[in-house]
Amino acid sequence: MPLITLTTDFGDGSYVAQIKGVLLSALPEARIVDVTHAVPPYSVRHAEVVLRGTGFAFPVGTVHLVVVDPGVGSARRPIAVRARGMTFVGPDNGVLGLALKQPEARVVALDRSDLFREPISPTFHGRDVFAPVAAELAAGLELDQVGTPISDPVASTIPDLRVTSTEVGGETLVSDRFGNLLTNVPAGSIGAGPVWIAGRATRRVQTYAEASCDELLNLAGSDGYIEIAMREASAADALGGGLGLEVLGPRRATV
Amino acid sequence: MPLITLTTDFGDGSYVAQIKGVLLSALPEARIVDVTHAVPPYSVRHAEVVLRGTGFAFPVGTVHLVVVDPGVGSARRPIAVRARGMTFVGPDNGVLGLALKQPEARVVALDRSDLFREPISPTFHGRDVFAPVAAELAAGLELDQVGTPISDPVASTIPDLRVTSTEVGGETLVSDRFGNLLTNVPAGSIGAGPVWIAGRATRRVQTYAEASCDELLNLAGSDGYIEIAMREASAADALGGGLGLEVLGPRRATV
Amino acid sequence: MPLITLTTDFGDGSYVAQIKGVLLSALPEARIVDVTHAVPPYSVRHAEVVLRGTGFAFPVGTVHLVVVDPGVGSARRPIAVRARGMTFVGPDNGVLGLALKQPEARVVALDRSDLFREPISPTFHGRDVFAPVAAELAAGLELDQVGTPISDPVASTIPDLRVTSTEVGGETLVSDRFGNLLTNVPAGSIGAGPVWIAGRATRRVQTYAEASCDELLNLAGSDGYIEIAMREASAADALGGGLGLEVLGPRRATV
Repeated sequence: MPLITLTTDFGDGSYVAQIKGVLLSALPEARIVDVTHAVPPYSVRHAEVVLRGTGFAFPVGTVHLVVVDPGVGSARRPIAVRARGMTFVGPDNGVLGLALKQPEARVVALDRSDLFREPISPTFHGRDVFAPVAAELAAGLELDQVGTPISDPVASTIPDLRVTSTEVGGETLVSDRFGNLLTNVPAGSIGAGPVWIAGRATRRVQTYAEASCDELLNLAGSDGYIEIAMREASAADALGGGLGLEVLGPRRATV
Repeated sequence: MPLITLTTDFGDGSYVAQIKGVLLSALPEARIVDVTHAVPPYSVRHAEVVLRGTGFAFPVGTVHLVVVDPGVGSARRPIAVRARGMTFVGPDNGVLGLALKQPEARVVALDRSDLFREPISPTFHGRDVFAPVAAELAAGLELDQVGTPISDPVASTIPDLRVTSTEVGGETLVSDRFGNLLTNVPAGSIGAGPVWIAGRATRRVQTYAEASCDELLNLAGSDGYIEIAMREASAADALGGGLGLEVLGPRRATV
Repeated sequence: MPLITLTTDFGDGSYVAQIKGVLLSALPEARIVDVTHAVPPYSVRHAEVVLRGTGFAFPVGTVHLVVVDPGVGSARRPIAVRARGMTFVGPDNGVLGLALKQPEARVVALDRSDLFREPISPTFHGRDVFAPVAAELAAGLELDQVGTPISDPVASTIPDLRVTSTEVGGETLVSDRFGNLLTNVPAGSIGAGPVWIAGRATRRVQTYAEASCDELLNLAGSDGYIEIAMREASAADALGGGLGLEVLGPRRATV
């Protein structure tokens, strides 16, 4: 039962359905799961954070089709990455950066134009390039049957941690529906003491319910990274949007 | 073909997809149907109204996973309810109140931690507690195989009707996309004469098309309850939001 | 494996799920694909444009259920159309106009009330009239088994092109999430030279990336029609909303 997931910035219009039509026409038994289509337009980084939480949450063998593609129609390459039993298909703009970082990840440029849908719309490679290849991969083609190995894919757009002998520094990456701010700071890297954001100290809690309602707090998010949050309120709103802010915490003593 | 539905306040981000990954990893043949993820954040009552319209609209055997859980990580219990051939899984905060009201409803507290996903994120029981148990129930486990019967589940947050010898009083509960206001007043309880809301009389119609465009009207909603509406306009906007307003109508003579 | 798609203006609430419950109760093996539920309320024209891109993108045999139905409960007829191997089910208000224009299209009024769900809610024919019939058609019933042929269905609400010896004139129909404006002007009808919109000349590009960021441009949209757009910005916003504006271009010389 081939499984294909979709992550795009297409919103709630009908572009996604056109992709599903292509997938189901090529592979009628495909099961399609929407991951999200609410990635902010053109936000490669947001999509990367989405994949951090979902990319390895599905059964082995899943094909993840990821279309956040501000350079559609330009020279950026279409690629596919195989890592930890999953296959990722999308543009070579960093959006598959997490997959690329996995041990033994393999990556190909999708250059078998005979697999593409004809004619290729210059503005909709999601439907005409990525979807047909994703269907072939879900149907069982190997990576080297759909493209040519490359060694220089574009890396993740998420910045590296800054680690000193006493501190760990990162930043806020995206906010979720509840106004929680997701960061690039692994919860396990932080020791005892406040985590600072935008000059304000936040207390570590285990659950939202421990906090008072107007308190900015931090906790280990459900994806294992530090999250800045408020109880039943929006930390993003409290911090003027809250994206790209520095997050600074005490480095956990090495055990 | 096990069927699992999802009702949450997670919005259009990717938390729902993480739940689907867990469900499909545990039960690859599961069919998953999104009921809605647009429940306003933390609104247990809104989710209850959603379930009023959908909880018994699916085939017998369906498992409804309901995650509107402001107390996630606190002491509130996870529960499962079986009623009229359906199974409901969610937090014990009233959100499953309708199921609990059904004749011969049975309810258990989910205390078999060996079924849960490890580690349990304190902020995402939807993924780590409720979803794995929902998958087991959809796969065929009985209620008493996933928990221990309890006798004191939290009741529905929807207020009871106020019925006098001549009047029936209720209130507006939620508004839908069209600005129609759904209430807790059964359409069959109302006799001839105007229904009052916020000091304004509304006329009963059968369909929106019968009304003039600026007229506040009432009709039997598609779920059998009185709905306050306007023709191609928003009653909610006309009533300043419109939630929690008293709705008063003439009591129908007993036949 | 019967395939049913859904296109509605129901938004992200739970009405759609009630329809899915009816479909799956009648036909448990049905595969259901959401096309979109974000059609602006009551916008028949918007739904028509959605179907232009998706109506024939699915495998032959697909049943498209389309519920944008401002006249629900009034005398407007429920209909079904079969064209090019697809079946469309919806209200007779023009929303199925594209299907009706196909060669050898056949259309029936749905008058077999024994197929409907009882009782029929006057405000929710999507659930009680259209969905049960769509399930029967997906299960294999022929068009003449669900209704009676009619010869006077309501036509498309999209205006015809205005073509002179030198010019082609059309208009903007809808905007997508990116603020691109979709029109009724086939890209192949336009020759060299600027396309005018609201008194402003736009340059033809192949891809968004060719343009500068504040430039209004035109290109062949992914559905084959002229699209007015900006690079990583919203043409709709730049044009004050942008719907219903005249679009005028040089007529392509006949080859």
